[in-house]
Amino acid sequence: MDMLWNGWGDPARATPLPDSVTALLHDLLGVKPRTTPALALGDIPVPAPTADATALAALATAVGGAQHVRTDAESRLRHTRGKSTPDLLRLRAGDTTDVPQAVVLPETHDEVLAVLGACATHGLAVVPFGGGTSVVGGLAPEHAAFVALDLRRMSGLLDLDPVSRTAVLQPGLRAPEAEALLAEHGFTLGHFPQSFEWATIGGFAAARSSGQASAGYGRFDEMVLGLTLATPEGTVETGRAPRSAAGPDLRQLILGSEGAFGVITSVTVRIRPVPEVRVYEGWRFASFEAGATALRRLAQDGPRPTVLRLSDETETLIGLAQPDAIGNDLTRGDAGCTAVVGYEGTPEDTAHRRERAAAVLTDCGGTLLGTEPGERWAHGRYNAPYLRDALLDVGAFAETLETAAFWSRVPELYGAVRTALTDTLTQAGTPPLVMCHISHVYENGASLYFTVVSAQGEDPVAHWEPAKHAANEAVLAAGGTISHHHGVGTDHRDWYVREAGPLGIAALRAVKGALDPAGLLSPGVLLPTD
Amino acid sequence: MDMLWNGWGDPARATPLPDSVTALLHDLLGVKPRTTPALALGDIPVPAPTADATALAALATAVGGAQHVRTDAESRLRHTRGKSTPDLLRLRAGDTTDVPQAVVLPETHDEVLAVLGACATHGLAVVPFGGGTSVVGGLAPEHAAFVALDLRRMSGLLDLDPVSRTAVLQPGLRAPEAEALLAEHGFTLGHFPQSFEWATIGGFAAARSSGQASAGYGRFDEMVLGLTLATPEGTVETGRAPRSAAGPDLRQLILGSEGAFGVITSVTVRIRPVPEVRVYEGWRFASFEAGATALRRLAQDGPRPTVLRLSDETETLIGLAQPDAIGNDLTRGDAGCTAVVGYEGTPEDTAHRRERAAAVLTDCGGTLLGTEPGERWAHGRYNAPYLRDALLDVGAFAETLETAAFWSRVPELYGAVRTALTDTLTQAGTPPLVMCHISHVYENGASLYFTVVSAQGEDPVAHWEPAKHAANEAVLAAGGTISHHHGVGTDHRDWYVREAGPLGIAALRAVKGALDPAGLLSPGVLLPTD
Repeated sequence: MDMLWNGWGDPARATPLPDSVTALLHDLLGVKPRTTPALALGDIPVPAPTADATALAALATAVGGAQHVRTDAESRLRHTRGKSTPDLLRLRAGDTTDVPQAVVLPETHDEVLAVLGACATHGLAVVPFGGGTSVVGGLAPEHAAFVALDLRRMSGLLDLDPVSRTAVLQPGLRAPEAEALLAEHGFTLGHFPQSFEWATIGGFAAARSSGQASAGYGRFDEMVLGLTLATPEGTVETGRAPRSAAGPDLRQLILGSEGAFGVITSVTVRIRPVPEVRVYEGWRFASFEAGATALRRLAQDGPRPTVLRLSDETETLIGLAQPDAIGNDLTRGDAGCTAVVGYEGTPEDTAHRRERAAAVLTDCGGTLLGTEPGERWAHGRYNAPYLRDALLDVGAFAETLETAAFWSRVPELYGAVRTALTDTLTQAGTPPLVMCHISHVYENGASLYFTVVSAQGEDPVAHWEPAKHAANEAVLAAGGTISHHHGVGTDHRDWYVREAGPLGIAALRAVKGALDPAGLLSPGVLLPTD
Repeated sequence: MDMLWNGWGDPARATPLPDSVTALLHDLLGVKPRTTPALALGDIPVPAPTADATALAALATAVGGAQHVRTDAESRLRHTRGKSTPDLLRLRAGDTTDVPQAVVLPETHDEVLAVLGACATHGLAVVPFGGGTSVVGGLAPEHAAFVALDLRRMSGLLDLDPVSRTAVLQPGLRAPEAEALLAEHGFTLGHFPQSFEWATIGGFAAARSSGQASAGYGRFDEMVLGLTLATPEGTVETGRAPRSAAGPDLRQLILGSEGAFGVITSVTVRIRPVPEVRVYEGWRFASFEAGATALRRLAQDGPRPTVLRLSDETETLIGLAQPDAIGNDLTRGDAGCTAVVGYEGTPEDTAHRRERAAAVLTDCGGTLLGTEPGERWAHGRYNAPYLRDALLDVGAFAETLETAAFWSRVPELYGAVRTALTDTLTQAGTPPLVMCHISHVYENGASLYFTVVSAQGEDPVAHWEPAKHAANEAVLAAGGTISHHHGVGTDHRDWYVREAGPLGIAALRAVKGALDPAGLLSPGVLLPTD
């Protein structure tokens, strides 16, 4: 099944907003219906590819036949940009800049190398394409003529070592398929980001993904034990041991390279037994600060739950995760902050951690709400992007952004980003709702994930830009990182360059120069082209 | 206090071997007294520096005065090579190749930058020098004229954030000093490698050190949250958050760079509360295989002890860690394998983990030996290098090497390295004792640490070389990494180049080219010079 071309997920699961919410958005935020509805797929004129027949023939040779090189308008539109709100708005408006010349579907590592060779010969850039779920412009290179290298034919489980608890996965494997293949052997990866249902193993690695169960299973980059990278200069193979002192960790140079250094063609991951027990419960705290302190205590002194999330007062009040119930809590000014705390594992271990964590949470002022809020969260955990589509449909603007910092900087970072977003959008005439949650905790810090909802401006993409710009500036000024798990892409690149510093960027450009001297790979993604 | 110039540690702690052990070495391995005793420090003719007065004056200016530039023979000899057995044997024989031109002692990051500038101007190479404990030739560059950049004046605790549990440490801080400074605030780093008493924070970071409590506290590279690197091209600053999706992890590019990319001038580390309880106990297993399975179960399914080590049959039989008792167990053919299992933390947590781990260890066939063997290990945990000096003094050869692999490859790797060492040294007429332990475990694999004792050959450095070569070949062939925690240096470089592959090496050389275009920094260490 293909994803909804100009929105999220399975078109059959699209759910319109209840009228009550639409009315609320109007009353609260001044949201008005769009006067320019989204274009239909067939109504968008896609310019013919400029790549000549020789180039397309070379690509066909590289991937074993013309049937694996698609140049039709629909295929190309379906590989245009990613799933950020500006990406969707541009597609809905029929903006066909960033359309690839062709979609190329290799089946093997060697075919990927051959595609890179053909592209080098014919002056085409290459953008690796997994689930297409980038929300940072990672699929929109600075190059007029590029091919989307769709990895869906490379979607196997190549090896599973139950003693070492490792598995070798191909990059185009979507997360649910990976989980299903591992489950046949009694294992799980434990990586459940919001993009879970559509994103791929290669994409998780390229973008340093982090999932909703990161407290228990770690980030995706912590799960990766080995990588194979196809580059225009050949192949890089990494990972002979879980850890090594043999030089810098090359895995950590490939993780986060976002397609700019090469195409990830296999990923060796850590796997764990499928948990016997999964339990998610809700906790209430009087304030975001009190809840954050509780999360910090668990992250630092344990026991570590598997899932640990805390919504701020606004997000709690809105009840973002349940479209049916949005606004139900608005009359209760004392809703406080809700946390979801989950445990997965053996019955004994789960019970022990749960009991001890409950003591810590209670000691920090938390009140147990039972399992109902936790189960409700678990049930709807992948639905937020569907909600965004529904919001866009009724003329609202909705977008997310995220960062992370050391614990002592988290309060300032939280305030700075909220203020930047609120002030900018209010001054632009569209006062927003800004909600936030902590969903990834570490001993030394945490992530902050913001959701912004407002009325759309006349040109909603341009309207959002100053707010996003102000948020990015606030992140850097308050000591945060420009992204905790979405990545850099093209959207965050200018701030990333400042975060990494000129010499850090020079080092990474040198790496790119060694692996991709002609600059074929995702030009302008992660690193500037000039 | 300075370390013993041609051996290990505090000269006052040197302990000769008991006569019974010397006799045993003779009977078992044919060890005979050396006919060429070690030279005294004053008897070694050190060639005068070739660096001219202008260069030395520039260095003096860079570090605030000529008193911080040492050119006397003793200072230079004390900064010659590291502490591998070949290093010590060469010094004992009066080999003054690899002597630095001068020892330069900067006090600040800016002074380090200034030294790099002066060295660039005057064509001098630079080798960062922390505790001088490299055992892989990391202090012996391929450059006739180099200065040792001794970081001992940069030994402060710059910042401590008790909320985030982070501390900023200077690179020249020795581990015991760092622990003392942190303990004033109730914190510990938890990094206790065998080199603990002498090695420095900067060295741990540069070489990807791993300590004896790595099961509980992690490797040093896992403790590092931020780094400042001084390079000939300027400064790299990393680490705005514990984890980030903002590009490849630059920290992991600096960790393990072994002085070849720059000089680490500050390290932000994760710190933890000083444990209230420390308990170490011994366990006995019938075989190395049975013990390894027990370690794997704890590493994979928990609970995770803080210290987890397992000696193979030979190491258990010899009782390597207790020179007084060496050989006492030799009559007992059924000694099996001894494991040391340690727990540190709060009383409650320690008791709980200990109880549950005991169930797993028992289930795997382990027999509890009580705390005596554990406490004995803890008491002597930093003594092995002293024992080596005593062995060298009586004419024995003793050296260690280590590797790591995924669990399923550990048995083959163990056998392959043992066989390579045993066969090569036996064929050379000096049949060795080869002992091994597992001392670092991960969910997906473990390290193997080998100790070799034999008679010295006529030229003991040359005699060892084929055995080390064969061991390295065995490591690569059996799928291990060329080093789990000693590093690459110059000794492992040729095998590291094969492990990382031509394109991996090309990427790292590109990084070096960006940060150190003139190749001033530790030339030939980690990466080849041509």
